Amino acid sequence: MDNRPIGVLDSGMGGLTAVRELLKILPEEDIVYFGDTGRVPYGTRSAEIVTQYAMQDISFLLSKDVKLVIAACGTVTTTLPEELTGRFRFPYTGVLKPTVRTALAATRNRKIGVIATATTIRTGAYERELKRLCPEAEVISGACPLFVPLVENGYVDRQNPVTRMVAEEYLAPIRAAGVDTLILGCTHYPVIAPILADVMGEGVTLVDSGKAAADYARSMLAEAGLLTGRKSRGSCSYYVSDAPDDFARNASIFLGERFGGEVGRIEITNYPDTIV
Amino acid sequence: MDNRPIGVLDSGMGGLTAVRELLKILPEEDIVYFGDTGRVPYGTRSAEIVTQYAMQDISFLLSKDVKLVIAACGTVTTTLPEELTGRFRFPYTGVLKPTVRTALAATRNRKIGVIATATTIRTGAYERELKRLCPEAEVISGACPLFVPLVENGYVDRQNPVTRMVAEEYLAPIRAAGVDTLILGCTHYPVIAPILADVMGEGVTLVDSGKAAADYARSMLAEAGLLTGRKSRGSCSYYVSDAPDDFARNASIFLGERFGGEVGRIEITNYPDTIV
Repeated sequence: MDNRPIGVLDSGMGGLTAVRELLKILPEEDIVYFGDTGRVPYGTRSAEIVTQYAMQDISFLLSKDVKLVIAACGTVTTTLPEELTGRFRFPYTGVLKPTVRTALAATRNRKIGVIATATTIRTGAYERELKRLCPEAEVISGACPLFVPLVENGYVDRQNPVTRMVAEEYLAPIRAAGVDTLILGCTHYPVIAPILADVMGEGVTLVDSGKAAADYARSMLAEAGLLTGRKSRGSCSYYVSDAPDDFARNASIFLGERFGGEVGRIEITNYPDTIV
Repeated sequence: MDNRPIGVLDSGMGGLTAVRELLKILPEEDIVYFGDTGRVPYGTRSAEIVTQYAMQDISFLLSKDVKLVIAACGTVTTTLPEELTGRFRFPYTGVLKPTVRTALAATRNRKIGVIATATTIRTGAYERELKRLCPEAEVISGACPLFVPLVENGYVDRQNPVTRMVAEEYLAPIRAAGVDTLILGCTHYPVIAPILADVMGEGVTLVDSGKAAADYARSMLAEAGLLTGRKSRGSCSYYVSDAPDDFARNASIFLGERFGGEVGRIEITNYPDTIV
């Protein structure tokens, strides 16, 4: 039993798709969220920069005495090397492993599509992990660099013609390959899931990486005996590296009415980019 | 006569539209360019963050002993307060004043459109400066937050259907107002000028803020007797805050064959955000 908060980080607002799930499945837990809105997006940056930024983000969450860190960001998850995350002396999960397990449980024809940021696709991490667990899987990957700016600018309505056109372009080769499961390997993408579902057509399961990570975090905490003993609703604290007002205004795109709690601004570059 | 380099800064690659002009009109000058690719874009961030980042960018250029600083970034120009830039003890220009003068020289009906990033439009700086110099001007402004990601992701072809659709949406109210001059208040936009010209229709003059700033910088240097005395071609040094390779690959979108010179990576957060 452990009443400390769960820490969630993302480059910006995408990680709120994991928070949405946590609020549903672990309502008694406290949550500390960090969104690096002063340096978003991560998915077009180099692995070196993403690693440096992510380590600062984790250092900040650790300064808040969290009991578990969820990297609710596809780019951070696939970029941080396992040699690094394997040495962490605190419970940690990214989105990769939970998402891959969910996808493998869902697929019937073992043809799986993966869409994510350019940096994530460049790592090949999803394809490697899928093939490690299921060598006969056929994986078709595609980078979708415009989805994050489209989502962060509110182009999310199901009928939005710009987002539909971009989605049709990005998804054409994946649809043509006949996948029955599509991994949304970036936590921004669930926000436009209705458009992606329309473009992919019936019979394709979309796998939400934020939700998968939240579900996995619950089982990690349960197995380690780290769930809270409280029976009342937990609290959410949000921290960002740019103006809190902008974040609060846009968070409703992700959380709707469930958004509530303080939003604070921190100076993220003051936190170390190494963790000892 | 002064052989020190000209310093040019931008949030990323947009400032290369000013470099392109400098290479044409001042080929003997040395240029030091800084693109903050590790923190691009600026145009969706708060004024406070943009000011902090911009001051670090200027500190870096000053460390390279530049004789003039060009903020070839609409967002930096319109966000840095004049109380701050007025105290600079080195020659400095942004894009605002040169662009406004060019636009006022071009317009016949005094109806002027301004497109720029959300942060720039929020400052109201273009409208204020246009009305200060020409009180009877009618100004119609519009934020175009998706243009920077579209340009940085290469959606720049004249026939690109996504960029055309987004441009039609953004420009509709400006076109309807009957402007005869359109200020491209962000240095990324000249790259998609052919699309913008098609959408605006014949008889509308587009004003390139990078070019206007470069032309203005030349007159500043000439008046102050600070032009170089060299007769041979000057050199260009490029510095970025993310991977140099990515920058070099994409710089051709802006500079074509004219791109050449070393690209170095620096740690921009090591430079002070105050200038004394």
